[in-house]
Parts: sequence; structure tokens; C-alpha cells
Amino acid sequence: MTRNRQFTLARRPHGMPVPQDFALIETPLPEPGPGETLVRNIYVSLDPAIRGWLDDKPSYMPPVALGAPVRASTIGRIAASNDPAYAVGDWVMGLNAIEDYSLGGAGGFLMKIDPGAVPSITSYMTVLGGSGLTAYFGLLRVGRPEAGQTVLVSGAAGSVGSLAGQIAKIHGCRTIGIAGGAEKCRRLTEAYGYDAAIDYRGKSVEQIAAGIAAAAPEGIDVVFENVGGAMLDAALLTINHGARIALCGMISEYNSATGAVGARNLFQLIVKSASMAGFIATDFMADIGQAYADLGRWLAEGRLVSDEHVDTGIDNAFPAFLRLFEGTNHGKMILKIGED
Amino acid sequence: MTRNRQFTLARRPHGMPVPQDFALIETPLPEPGPGETLVRNIYVSLDPAIRGWLDDKPSYMPPVALGAPVRASTIGRIAASNDPAYAVGDWVMGLNAIEDYSLGGAGGFLMKIDPGAVPSITSYMTVLGGSGLTAYFGLLRVGRPEAGQTVLVSGAAGSVGSLAGQIAKIHGCRTIGIAGGAEKCRRLTEAYGYDAAIDYRGKSVEQIAAGIAAAAPEGIDVVFENVGGAMLDAALLTINHGARIALCGMISEYNSATGAVGARNLFQLIVKSASMAGFIATDFMADIGQAYADLGRWLAEGRLVSDEHVDTGIDNAFPAFLRLFEGTNHGKMILKIGED
Repeated sequence: MTRNRQFTLARRPHGMPVPQDFALIETPLPEPGPGETLVRNIYVSLDPAIRGWLDDKPSYMPPVALGAPVRASTIGRIAASNDPAYAVGDWVMGLNAIEDYSLGGAGGFLMKIDPGAVPSITSYMTVLGGSGLTAYFGLLRVGRPEAGQTVLVSGAAGSVGSLAGQIAKIHGCRTIGIAGGAEKCRRLTEAYGYDAAIDYRGKSVEQIAAGIAAAAPEGIDVVFENVGGAMLDAALLTINHGARIALCGMISEYNSATGAVGARNLFQLIVKSASMAGFIATDFMADIGQAYADLGRWLAEGRLVSDEHVDTGIDNAFPAFLRLFEGTNHGKMILKIGED
Repeated sequence: MTRNRQFTLARRPHGMPVPQDFALIETPLPEPGPGETLVRNIYVSLDPAIRGWLDDKPSYMPPVALGAPVRASTIGRIAASNDPAYAVGDWVMGLNAIEDYSLGGAGGFLMKIDPGAVPSITSYMTVLGGSGLTAYFGLLRVGRPEAGQTVLVSGAAGSVGSLAGQIAKIHGCRTIGIAGGAEKCRRLTEAYGYDAAIDYRGKSVEQIAAGIAAAAPEGIDVVFENVGGAMLDAALLTINHGARIALCGMISEYNSATGAVGARNLFQLIVKSASMAGFIATDFMADIGQAYADLGRWLAEGRLVSDEHVDTGIDNAFPAFLRLFEGTNHGKMILKIGED
């Protein structure tokens, strides 16, 4: 291949992204400069966070530039290398883009990964990837549950949420998950060990809160929040004194064209002397070694499972990405754009 | 006097309270039982929190019962005592009600106070009362500012806010206050030592945020939030990485008949890995001795000032209470209902 297909940002989405916001273009294959590598991307991690990077708003990362390939984490293999640390054929993961080939090095994040150490190379996108680290640090360092406490997870069938629930279970907590639809809710209890599952579809804030209260008459000690909006408002009505809310994401608001709905029951933080803290996994990079050790051990012991939803082909990037907001993915959304 | 005038809750307010929500009634003077005292209330502390107690909603205290006198902190003198710890004439403060006489004891909160130790007996309602303790614990234990950091206070001319700003200043912080109107803003810088004052009147969230950013180009490290709504949303746009928001009150929402507006910029908590924690001063009662010692010393040294707005007569209870929400009080709102 001498051409590089790139899924680029043609214009900034207004609300829910539409196909016209993106363009699949072909550019010449880049040449790695001194100290650089060329990565053939094989698996692309499609995450809700990508939606935020498409907006021209202050965030924890600069927005994707217009005309640039859409930023994403990928797993791939070294196709060319001017860096003695990487040999052609090495498996790597990194923060790259939705494109056949990415230049690695020069300050970018790139890490060698070992296919022999995991059940599937895509484990580095789930348990041993951003999802696992986000669930691990968010739950244990921000939520800080104690054994015997009750943990509520929204977006509980998602890539991060399903792992947060399982890690809470490993820590001796009772877990309650919220998800959309009967099939996802069945998965919560059958695959991810949740003690109770709540289907939010067609329910008001008060009805969701009543469902949580019925499943957790003792109240909620820790909330792992992925959704925001109505889900967060319902959670706020069920928290115990001193509860901690780990604010991981607010997927319900990312595509709002009219601005965020926000949380209306914030006064409950005062009523319950409770706290809510936002975070991203990189806040805790100093402890990444311990996190990988724990996550790797739990994965090997079969105590952490993660579903994957793999779509194929870079030309399917748009519908695959949209699944995250339609809720039609079942497990970690991965786009396979190359051969292993 | 053999009759007890009581300002009672006739019906629960819907939105902004109206006179018909209350009734001034006369009841027989209560007789203290064994171990009880009778307090002649002289000063009543009118606080925004009272509005919350009038609603039949879950809160940190049970709602005021229909027909019962409206709960309030008072300062008064012992009129009769069956408790050897209290003699007739002793000055006391306690959580009582807006009424001429309250029964003390039997598990209720009552504390002897010393008029000789303070510039004015009402200091026990300001610096050495709930306002002072709330500002002290909220700022130092929830906000946790470090010297050199920038602290933003909303409701900055209010009883709690003005003290929070001064305590932040004592701790070597730069302080920015938000208040309504030029007169209050002048008071912020001239009396309470704020480095900058922002008048929120007639301004959008974005305009308030621009005002904060202009006054604090280095960003905000700690927010002491008394107002909620637009004020909180503006603050969220100006916080630094790792900022702490001490959520003390949300006075802008207490009288909403249609439900709270809420905060719409909560995603900034994720962007900035920031946290927001609700609290009430009683969370920190174990450390009240240290708090009184610090507050008393700063008061004696003239480093803490607190304005008082004193209205007179229990028949003025309603308009005096309403000032809190109209913003027409200048300083701690006190109703004097008896003679010293």
C-alpha cells in the first residue's frame, strides 16, 4: 500500500454527528523521520470521548483540527521504524487516528504490547486499555468504595461501566447497573456480576430513582457516572451521606445541539454532604504499573470479562462511531481496519 | 407576658414565599418541664437555609411542620429554668424558632454565650455563629485553598460569603467576589478585602465567566459557592486543573416553582479533574473548638468583620425573611424581636 486512507473531520458536528461531518480521503503514505516509526493501524478504539474532541471547546485535549484524521486509540504493528526500540512487526498501541497508517514517536504516546500475554490482542483496548484504566482509577481512586458498600454504575453495559462494576464486585461491593434495554440488562447480571440491573428506557428521573431505591434500600455509597443528565439526577436522589460520585463521562450530553441539560438535583450534594469529582485516567499515570498488575491478574484469573463489538472496514467508521450514541453496540466498540 | 407570639408555617410556599404562607399567632406561654428551660428569644437569625426547611422534601433536617413556628437560630436569655446549668438571665443561643419564647433542653441545641467576650452579642450570629462556622469549615476543610491560590466566592457580600472571603485572605489567597449591585461590590473590596468584585446583575453566564477570567487570568483554584445556577455555571468555566468547589448553598434555586435549573457546565469537572462537594457545618463538629478559637482570635484582632442588617419586630418576620431572596439586605439578616 502506498496510500493512506484517513477518516477526517470535514466540519464540526452540530449535535448528533452526520456523515457530512466527515470525509474519507487518501493521502500519500507518510515517511517516518529520524527517531520516528510508522504504525499500520489494525484495530481502532471508538470511544464516546472522541465526540468531545470534535468540538471547538476547551477540554483536556486540543480539538481535532478541521481536515485532520479523527484522533483515536489504535492497536497496530510497526510497518517501518527509525527508532531502535521498535522493530518492524512489533505490536503497539498508541493515541493515533482513524487512518491506515500513523506516524509514531516525537512525543506521541506509543507502547509495545505482547500478544502472548493476553487472551486476545484487543484486550489492550478493553481490560488493559483505556477502558480498564479508566474504570480502575475512577472507581478505586475517585469513588473509593469500601467492602460492603453499594456501587451504582450508569452506562453499566458499556466498555468502562462493565469493568467498573466488576472491579467493584472484586472489592466486595454490592453493584447496581443502569443500561438501556432488556438485552443489556440481562448481560449486566449474567456476564458482569451486577446484583441488580435497571433498564432506564422510557423512565423519568423519578422512576429511575425509584428503581435504584428498590434495588438498594440501603442507599448508594458510590456512583460511577458515565451518562449524566437524567441518570445523574436519579443517582443524586439515592445517595447516602458522604457518598462519592466519580464523574467519568456524560454521554447523554455530548450530542446536544442546544447545550447541556445539566444536573438539577445538585442540592442533594449539600443534603448528603456528598462529593462529585471529574477525572481522566491519565491523572493517575504515576500508578499505572500497579493498575496494569491488578488488571492483568484479574484478567488472567477470569475475574474480568469485557465484551467486544467489532465492525470492519475504515469505510464503516461513521456508522460504527454512531453506535456509541444509538446504544446499538454490545460491548467495547472496535473498528477493525487492517489484517492481523 | 403570658402569651407567646409565633410566626408559623400556614402552608408550604410554592416558589417565592408570599405572606399567606405564614401566620402570626398567639399561643399560651409554654411551661418548662423537668430539665427544661424557657428562652426569651431576642435576636432571630434569618438564613436562606430556612427556605429549604419549609419544603416537604428530603433534606438534612425534617421539614417545618404545618402550623408549627418556623425553625430558626436565635439568641436570647433564660426566662425560666428547671436545668441547674442555666440561670434566669443567662444569654444563650440555640436552634429554636421565630417566636417570643422557646422551650430549651430535651435534646435540642442550646449553648450559653458570654456577652463580655465579644464586640456585640450578635457576633454569636455572625463570626461566632453558623455563618462563621460554615465559612470556616467550608473554605478550609472542603475548599482547602493553599496560600497564593485564587478563591472565588459567590454571594460574596452575604453573611457566609463575606466571612469566607476574609478567611481566604487570612490564608494568603487572592479573593474574587461576586455580588449583585454596585453598592455590594464596593463593600466587597472596601470592607471584606476582596481583590476584585464582579457585579452579576444583567449578565449572562458567559459574561460573568469573562469577568472572572479578567479578574483572575491565572484561573480559579477554589470556589465557595452560595448561589448555584448561572453563578456555578460561570465558575465552572474558569476553574483550574484540580480545583475544588465547596458547595455551601444554591440560593438562586430555593424559590424555583418549576424545579431547579441546575448546572449545565458540569463536564468541566471532567475537563479539569475538579471536584465539587456539598457540606454543612455540623459535619465538622468534632473540630468546633479549634474553629471557635481561630474565629474568636481573628474577631478580636479585627481581621474579620461582618455587617448586620437588623429589622425589628416579629410582625416584620415575613418582609425581613424575603430580603434574603430580594437581595435587599446588607449583611447578616437579623430580626430583633425582644429587648436586650
